[in-house]
Amino acid sequence: MQDIGLVGLGVMGRNLALNMMNHGYNVSGYNLTFKQTQELIDMQNPRFEGFETIKDMVQSLSVPRKVFVMVPAGKPVDEVIDEVVPYLEKGDIIMDGGNSFYKDTEARYEKLKALGIHYYGVGVSGGAKGALNGPSIMPSGDKEIYQEVGKILEDISAKYEGDPCCTYIGPKGSGHYVKMVHNGIEYADMQLLVEVYLLLKYGCMYDNAKISSVLSSWNQKEARSYLVEITASILKEKDDVTEHDLVDMIKDVAGNKGTGRWTSIEALKQEYNASMLSAAYAARVMSNQVEMRKTYHEVLGNEKDVLLKEDTIYKAYILAKSLAYGQGFGLYEDASKRYGWDLNFEKIASIFRDGCIIQSYLLQKIMDAYQNGATCLLESKEYQKEIQLYANDLKEVVIHGLSANIAIPVFTNALLYLVQLSTTQLGANLIQAQRDYFGAHTFERIDQDGMIHHEWSESHD
Amino acid sequence: MQDIGLVGLGVMGRNLALNMMNHGYNVSGYNLTFKQTQELIDMQNPRFEGFETIKDMVQSLSVPRKVFVMVPAGKPVDEVIDEVVPYLEKGDIIMDGGNSFYKDTEARYEKLKALGIHYYGVGVSGGAKGALNGPSIMPSGDKEIYQEVGKILEDISAKYEGDPCCTYIGPKGSGHYVKMVHNGIEYADMQLLVEVYLLLKYGCMYDNAKISSVLSSWNQKEARSYLVEITASILKEKDDVTEHDLVDMIKDVAGNKGTGRWTSIEALKQEYNASMLSAAYAARVMSNQVEMRKTYHEVLGNEKDVLLKEDTIYKAYILAKSLAYGQGFGLYEDASKRYGWDLNFEKIASIFRDGCIIQSYLLQKIMDAYQNGATCLLESKEYQKEIQLYANDLKEVVIHGLSANIAIPVFTNALLYLVQLSTTQLGANLIQAQRDYFGAHTFERIDQDGMIHHEWSESHD
Repeated sequence: MQDIGLVGLGVMGRNLALNMMNHGYNVSGYNLTFKQTQELIDMQNPRFEGFETIKDMVQSLSVPRKVFVMVPAGKPVDEVIDEVVPYLEKGDIIMDGGNSFYKDTEARYEKLKALGIHYYGVGVSGGAKGALNGPSIMPSGDKEIYQEVGKILEDISAKYEGDPCCTYIGPKGSGHYVKMVHNGIEYADMQLLVEVYLLLKYGCMYDNAKISSVLSSWNQKEARSYLVEITASILKEKDDVTEHDLVDMIKDVAGNKGTGRWTSIEALKQEYNASMLSAAYAARVMSNQVEMRKTYHEVLGNEKDVLLKEDTIYKAYILAKSLAYGQGFGLYEDASKRYGWDLNFEKIASIFRDGCIIQSYLLQKIMDAYQNGATCLLESKEYQKEIQLYANDLKEVVIHGLSANIAIPVFTNALLYLVQLSTTQLGANLIQAQRDYFGAHTFERIDQDGMIHHEWSESHD
Repeated sequence: MQDIGLVGLGVMGRNLALNMMNHGYNVSGYNLTFKQTQELIDMQNPRFEGFETIKDMVQSLSVPRKVFVMVPAGKPVDEVIDEVVPYLEKGDIIMDGGNSFYKDTEARYEKLKALGIHYYGVGVSGGAKGALNGPSIMPSGDKEIYQEVGKILEDISAKYEGDPCCTYIGPKGSGHYVKMVHNGIEYADMQLLVEVYLLLKYGCMYDNAKISSVLSSWNQKEARSYLVEITASILKEKDDVTEHDLVDMIKDVAGNKGTGRWTSIEALKQEYNASMLSAAYAARVMSNQVEMRKTYHEVLGNEKDVLLKEDTIYKAYILAKSLAYGQGFGLYEDASKRYGWDLNFEKIASIFRDGCIIQSYLLQKIMDAYQNGATCLLESKEYQKEIQLYANDLKEVVIHGLSANIAIPVFTNALLYLVQLSTTQLGANLIQAQRDYFGAHTFERIDQDGMIHHEWSESHD
């Protein structure tokens, strides 16, 4: 009998199947169109069996049956579940490895629980290469089932100094939630590197080759990360068609697949300010405002020369990146309480250290902070120290960057966040006065407890 | 027989009932607890009849029966509907005047349509005073029924130079949507005035009395609005208890009732960047981060003296406020297309000119822009002119304000928005390169059509 069945043999599914076989698992495969199944059969790996029907595929599996679904999020997942369920028995397990919205995962979990079938939401990060060589994996569902699914997931996951980049996340949809916010952090870090590129380009007048070598040198230091590495690599890539660097031949318009937007929406629902993650998503939206960008092109004038040192930009990046991760982990902290998930933040940081897009040296620092007892990462001693050290560099970069008309929304929102925390007065007292004036919404006084309504004098303007 | 039945006789419901009676309508009233009904009965207005049961109240109404529900949004609305429906006939009308979420209104509309009962979502703005003296009213539902409900709603609405501040908005939930975004704009304008106050206080070293008189003078000019007027009034209010100004005795922590958050969430769902509206909501959230604010108090140092002219702050306010309204109306423009509502933006602006919280001279300019053929307010000639005129003032205020550690998130997001529109390069080309590098998400080239995937060189860092 086969160890696991894979439904969906696109690039991600196929690579996960190969990864599993490389780790000694016998894999059955099914795909809506048989072509992808045939391609795997043609590889003649004795551990693989391909099937033309879901029924045959499921019946090839040892009990409890494990079906791993790797199809596009949304309706396709429900369709696969509906097709698979008739051939499953109580105690069997379905895993969803796609980018499903965590509330959909919760609904599916409940639906299948009623049938006695275990449902695991499995966040997977690392793209096609990660799927083949070891992704970061975030599984959630009934804890008592983790022994059944955990071994294979940990086996195929990336390893950081021998530790698997896979851990039990929590109940129900928490794995997909953690993956969603991972992507929100990813948006912010990608955008911060874009802003570093713009600051070095328009600020320091560096060309692509120089920026690439700057980022390569940063990658030997505290800023080390997969995204810094690939950005350095991208910036020295030549175009196949013209004499230019490839990056300069790409349209200045960004796409997105929704997870960054979802993160911003969930932050709002949690009433948690993840401004940097939201600004990164909004930056992609703004890039699509092609007509309006034409109308207002250079309305503020050209990008101007700024006098910024490379080292100041480096320090500002270190701090801004920490704050972005801090807002992301802040969402975890809040969600863990709010939804009763009991997340282990240190473990989550640990499984991001390899295999996924946001793998970064910073995660070690985040692990240290939680290990040293932090309950709120952004307030940890480690963060306090870094903010003290680099706040003025961040401020210098933002002030000079904006002065020079360089679009740095995530750096700017990092500074705004610190200004809002640092300031003597946010002026929310005036907001409360306005609300009480026009809506009798009441306010609190600084010198006594309780909510008060004041009978305001009429205006005589 | 009575003309209309009011369910919910709290402050808002009672004042609407009185307003209706002042306009010659005979009103029946019902409230969950009889006390509020009795209070209205005790006023001995011959046009009022109070009832102890919903049944009796409904049976007092002329056909088609009109029931106006004014209870807290959410479950109470559904409960009232369930209680009223058994006593209604086909062709009768229920109106919901609360701050219901527009998608709830749509669900209720569909449910009642199946029963042959007309459902109107009625956005009402103006607080308790507005309800009594004339609010701004945003009704939506089946257009052919508007003749039945429109007269009374227009009669009780505020009048701007004789024109009622009430108009048919569109189908289904569009009225509550328009009200929701109205509140999003309200959050932004309130927060901008807070930031003006902070800039004048910490920037120009003005005291409350001076800021009050500055705002009073602004209220004679282009900046004229209800919110400017009441803010001027608030800042000269004395405390009853101490020798201080009342505003200085109020805690620097702001509440919210959700509509600002809803607006931000809907903007994300529409993939529309309403950054200023979202920043205004986020500012309230940040004010509640009491512990973190203690931890990072003055981490950037004190607020510092800045050299800003009052007139520069005025011009920056004019522009930032226009941009905030522009983002709000941009949401209307997008929603109108997205949901097929066919909204009349000029009419919407016109009914905000009196009765509601955001009544402002600016609305006349917005009406002019739409009248002159604008389909996108933010790209209209009127906006282009203003942006050309005041962009540098806005920039000066933000750069100097942030330099001085003054918390100005909405001004800052106004500048960011312009920088993003104005810039030569957002760097989205690099985002696309990163996405294609790690996820084969493809990109577009500047010199040819179509989505391309590139086989990137491996990094050798």
